[in-house]
Amino acid sequence: MQPKLTLVGAGPGDGELMTLKGMKVLQQADVLLYDDLIDPALLDHAPREALRIYVGKRAGRASFRQEEINALAVRLARKRGHVVRLKGGDPFVFGRGHEEMEYAQRHGVPCEVVPGVSSCVAVPAAQGIPVTRRGLSESFWVITGTTRTGELSDDLYLAAQSKATVVVLMGLNKLDELCAIYAQLGRGHLPMAVIQNGTRRRERSVVGQVWEIPRLVAERGLGAPAVLVIGEVVTLHPAYVSEYLRSAASVAL
Amino acid sequence: MQPKLTLVGAGPGDGELMTLKGMKVLQQADVLLYDDLIDPALLDHAPREALRIYVGKRAGRASFRQEEINALAVRLARKRGHVVRLKGGDPFVFGRGHEEMEYAQRHGVPCEVVPGVSSCVAVPAAQGIPVTRRGLSESFWVITGTTRTGELSDDLYLAAQSKATVVVLMGLNKLDELCAIYAQLGRGHLPMAVIQNGTRRRERSVVGQVWEIPRLVAERGLGAPAVLVIGEVVTLHPAYVSEYLRSAASVAL
Repeated sequence: MQPKLTLVGAGPGDGELMTLKGMKVLQQADVLLYDDLIDPALLDHAPREALRIYVGKRAGRASFRQEEINALAVRLARKRGHVVRLKGGDPFVFGRGHEEMEYAQRHGVPCEVVPGVSSCVAVPAAQGIPVTRRGLSESFWVITGTTRTGELSDDLYLAAQSKATVVVLMGLNKLDELCAIYAQLGRGHLPMAVIQNGTRRRERSVVGQVWEIPRLVAERGLGAPAVLVIGEVVTLHPAYVSEYLRSAASVAL
Repeated sequence: MQPKLTLVGAGPGDGELMTLKGMKVLQQADVLLYDDLIDPALLDHAPREALRIYVGKRAGRASFRQEEINALAVRLARKRGHVVRLKGGDPFVFGRGHEEMEYAQRHGVPCEVVPGVSSCVAVPAAQGIPVTRRGLSESFWVITGTTRTGELSDDLYLAAQSKATVVVLMGLNKLDELCAIYAQLGRGHLPMAVIQNGTRRRERSVVGQVWEIPRLVAERGLGAPAVLVIGEVVTLHPAYVSEYLRSAASVAL
């Protein structure tokens, strides 16, 4: 038996956005460690006898710590063979995937990575928003809303002054703070979208200008998981113009 | 017959990094318009009778202009039905995919987008470089090396001052200029990687510090297509330490 760990990006939500390579790996799993936000249909593709273990953070009970997941993967690889770690989006985009890889390798378990479609591009795309567009945006900047300290990343202060399309993952609970930063920098007029459950059933979105987004999100009751997009490309969202006119009209009234 | 256009991201190079959804669409194509950098094996998955047309920019002959591709897609959709536009990476990451979608919709041809695995994350990952990593990088900034005017994006000046991992696509022919910007800002010591043919056969890479990268790339004869990565995460590349020591030793000699 060969101990082995493969980190597989399961894509942004819709299980069909998994890669062919990821699917092939999944079909060879002896153990499946899966995360939150994985399309449950994917789990059926692992062999029937494969052990399936949920290691996500949204369970009612106390969540797994990263160190526990790292150790569990190594232990199970030694005991059972091929451990497949299925992670939402891409394993190296804020997924702590590299730490899992490093831990396994340090403990003598070979590790491979199969990239996935990241929410940072695919979730805006599913709403008709391209992260780049000639004449509107020559770059996009992807930032975590939740750092080690639980704070918004400092990088956001510079990002809010840039011409880049800014995409914030895991940032909904910092929405007020984030929008306030833009407002303080005189950029509260920028177009912004909040997209909940991107590429999944019950996908919902709100578009508007940064200053009004916290109110709109509260009024419509959007919740996590959500992707935030700020920048001129949001004007390409099919609802942007009408939303903006509606909003302007309500202000005028 | 229903005219229809679907933009499909074919991933960073390795055909197995195509999504399940993309493959399904490909199998229903009446016409296939394909780009450069597509794994040729993918073309075999379209129905035998599907028309296959190369619209890339690296042909020996004059390249297709974007306007020609837009018009061709609409004409063929009306004439033949389902046109599948297979694009390297993700259709909305510097691919002018949104322009193709907009043009088709404006001409009454419904258009869908199937996201793909983007090179910006997957090519560094294939070299063992995560674009984000706790303690090293809380964000990544993806920038085009080639704007409308053929220049480096202005965004790079701000990016070079940020703590973000900076990923530059289509930037190899601006390498000297790019590295000079970092040097002028006193950041020539940052770790940098240049990766040619990421996730393909003949994948090659160079790692080092920004100041020495133009020389190393020239010495080893790396060429396009290449992805540039700048930031502390590059120190996680398996060759970084040894390369750096070698380089320091050669300077000392």
